[in-house]
Amino acid sequence: MGKLNQMEAAKRGIVTDEIAAVAVDERREAEWIRERVAQGRIVVPANKLHTSLKPMGIGRELRTKINANIGTSPTTSCLNQELMKLDSAITYGADTVMDLSTGDNLDQTRRAIIGHSIIPVGTVPIYELACRGGSDDAIDFSKEAVLSVIRDQAEQGVDYMTMHCGIRPAMLPAARARKLRIVSRGGALIARYMAQTGRDNPFYDYFDDILEICRQYDVTISLGDGLRPGCLADASDRAQFAELAQLGELAKRCREADVQVMIEGPGHIPLDEIEMNMKLEQLWCDDAPFYVLGPVTMDCAPGYDHLTSAIGAAVGAWKGAAMLCYVTPKEHIGLPNAEDVHQGVIAYKIAAHVADIAKHIPGAMEQDNAISDARAAFDWDRQFELALDPEKARALRQEAINERNSPTPLQGTRNGEHFCSMCGAKFCSIRVSKEI
Amino acid sequence: MGKLNQMEAAKRGIVTDEIAAVAVDERREAEWIRERVAQGRIVVPANKLHTSLKPMGIGRELRTKINANIGTSPTTSCLNQELMKLDSAITYGADTVMDLSTGDNLDQTRRAIIGHSIIPVGTVPIYELACRGGSDDAIDFSKEAVLSVIRDQAEQGVDYMTMHCGIRPAMLPAARARKLRIVSRGGALIARYMAQTGRDNPFYDYFDDILEICRQYDVTISLGDGLRPGCLADASDRAQFAELAQLGELAKRCREADVQVMIEGPGHIPLDEIEMNMKLEQLWCDDAPFYVLGPVTMDCAPGYDHLTSAIGAAVGAWKGAAMLCYVTPKEHIGLPNAEDVHQGVIAYKIAAHVADIAKHIPGAMEQDNAISDARAAFDWDRQFELALDPEKARALRQEAINERNSPTPLQGTRNGEHFCSMCGAKFCSIRVSKEI
Repeated sequence: MGKLNQMEAAKRGIVTDEIAAVAVDERREAEWIRERVAQGRIVVPANKLHTSLKPMGIGRELRTKINANIGTSPTTSCLNQELMKLDSAITYGADTVMDLSTGDNLDQTRRAIIGHSIIPVGTVPIYELACRGGSDDAIDFSKEAVLSVIRDQAEQGVDYMTMHCGIRPAMLPAARARKLRIVSRGGALIARYMAQTGRDNPFYDYFDDILEICRQYDVTISLGDGLRPGCLADASDRAQFAELAQLGELAKRCREADVQVMIEGPGHIPLDEIEMNMKLEQLWCDDAPFYVLGPVTMDCAPGYDHLTSAIGAAVGAWKGAAMLCYVTPKEHIGLPNAEDVHQGVIAYKIAAHVADIAKHIPGAMEQDNAISDARAAFDWDRQFELALDPEKARALRQEAINERNSPTPLQGTRNGEHFCSMCGAKFCSIRVSKEI
Repeated sequence: MGKLNQMEAAKRGIVTDEIAAVAVDERREAEWIRERVAQGRIVVPANKLHTSLKPMGIGRELRTKINANIGTSPTTSCLNQELMKLDSAITYGADTVMDLSTGDNLDQTRRAIIGHSIIPVGTVPIYELACRGGSDDAIDFSKEAVLSVIRDQAEQGVDYMTMHCGIRPAMLPAARARKLRIVSRGGALIARYMAQTGRDNPFYDYFDDILEICRQYDVTISLGDGLRPGCLADASDRAQFAELAQLGELAKRCREADVQVMIEGPGHIPLDEIEMNMKLEQLWCDDAPFYVLGPVTMDCAPGYDHLTSAIGAAVGAWKGAAMLCYVTPKEHIGLPNAEDVHQGVIAYKIAAHVADIAKHIPGAMEQDNAISDARAAFDWDRQFELALDPEKARALRQEAINERNSPTPLQGTRNGEHFCSMCGAKFCSIRVSKEI
């Protein structure tokens, strides 16, 4: 563990192997990346012990990243299913994955996921803390218990950890006044502990010790938003922003301790408040990478929240979010299966790509321009190759062909021009407009 | 046909039955609606002969409307399939439908759709004009032929017609310079005619005669964007905006002739250019309702363009689009079937609703607030009732339940508090946060 961590190295002017790899991946100068890692505007989550990792960077000026959540619950899922979800997430393009397991065999599940994963793995240590407490509501929030979970997970190679260090007793009255109070599981568990004991947030109290563990292993801290709004009616309220202000102060302490830090963000936010939310985070948290869940932009479309939130995610990333935590069609309904993971990842790849184009990220439009050329050339095979989800595009094309009731061949020529006969040659705008 | 049309009546200070119905529907004063119909800022597409119609209004300050395209092609679909698509569109909440048929039996198909439809029906008369020309590329653009199609369709009760009146010869060089030239089928057919004959756009040349027919039957003109960009590389270019400027002039002539008018808009537009596109239309077309197709915000996700465009549509409507033309998962691939129509309509209901919340349309958040209350109360039945697509939400819930491998009951109580056990009682944030 003698190796410098990313922030220590960057502050000393050293371009680590990980920073060099990120620079290549992002088509930037290594020095440009290093400077921002030192400032904390880019993080490179890479636990020193996660040996299978391919390094990546997260920051507002980089390509927008997406995270997929997987993990068991006490009622659902097993290890094999989780590894299938991991594969599905990586195949379709997730940049990081979070293991949110709360079921049995947490250790075994986490080890397997980290061992299999070439992308950074995140966790929420309070889940394991709660599981260690047994089956009732008792959770041991002692310093020993809390630090032991964090240290154990760091030793397993976890690259980043969500910890809800910013929720404080003074914020509870504002949370109580809400329609849905607290929807973050970690936030709710800590809030109840504070309400019942009159004590402060243990993750806040032990923050210096937590920083020391994270510095040692190079675990990136993702400061959790325990008070993220769970419905539009609760959005952008006093509780949410009181916590964000607190997270800004903690982010500063992270950087001073050479610990990389991201800030987690909402949640459920109306479309017209997203830009303001992004700006406030940049101001209050000194441009620490903002890692947002959605945001979901309407409440009444269960079954389609990958879509309601992809709208918010695209606008959020355009206006400054660095990483998007995906939402699957099962949000508000149940635990996602592998197909839900697939749908969630694709929806978020779309949101991220749309934002990258809007942000003019280098190279963002290359694939789009290439597929447009393939459309002009009626080159279907090339269109499929360039598609975000080639299998799906091919399947829909085949479905459309099977539903035709005409003997006309699918591709043809008229006046020496190619066309495909989906619309009929006469109505093929691409063919016709070649004759102008 | 002696009855005044909507604009004539509105200009004389008369609140028609249709305007009164729109006012109730939109929770506005009838006089407020009438004033904007007179100004042309709201249109009420209602052909005097479409007797089954339930009137509705389209305008930037009203609830965002969505349109679903249906229709046969020379290679695919039959009348029954189209009526199924119509039912699917209406069931899931389309506000208008366009019959874009280019197959056989156009008349019969259109009559059946109008007869069955309680929502306004739109058409693109140039498609029938092209079909009447027979099977090769010949199209009769004579005044008699063009006006005869428009008159025949008006007599059948068509509520609004897309006509590409604004594409002019001087715009062709800019269109030729594009990656995908012209992707509007109507626009491409007119452009080729102009290029081959050296003449102007017939729909522009005969515009006064077209206005007279539309005034008589009260057909709303939807000024087509023949030069809408077909890929991001072509977005917001000289060709597109030259046509928009021309449409603004034609919109003025419509209003002077007491003909209601909408403006059609793009297309493929990067997220960061959507607001500018909406503003320019409002300025140049005196706030005539803007009826946009998407916009699609990335090119390389065939199979998911309902989603890539729902992102653009939500932002477009928030920034001023009055009606959204849906895009289905089959866009760029083939003709949609009934399930594609379903997916397209739902995606656009979502985009419209997200925008209505962002625009603070009266009552927009009622359903969202009600479902949030149901979530706090663990009232699953009520959540399903309030869902945009209850059937889908119920199906996903059932799937999640079937995939559980735990004997724990789905609903329970602990410490007198209800919870559902999807996450396990211990991790139920809604239950836990009731104890703060």
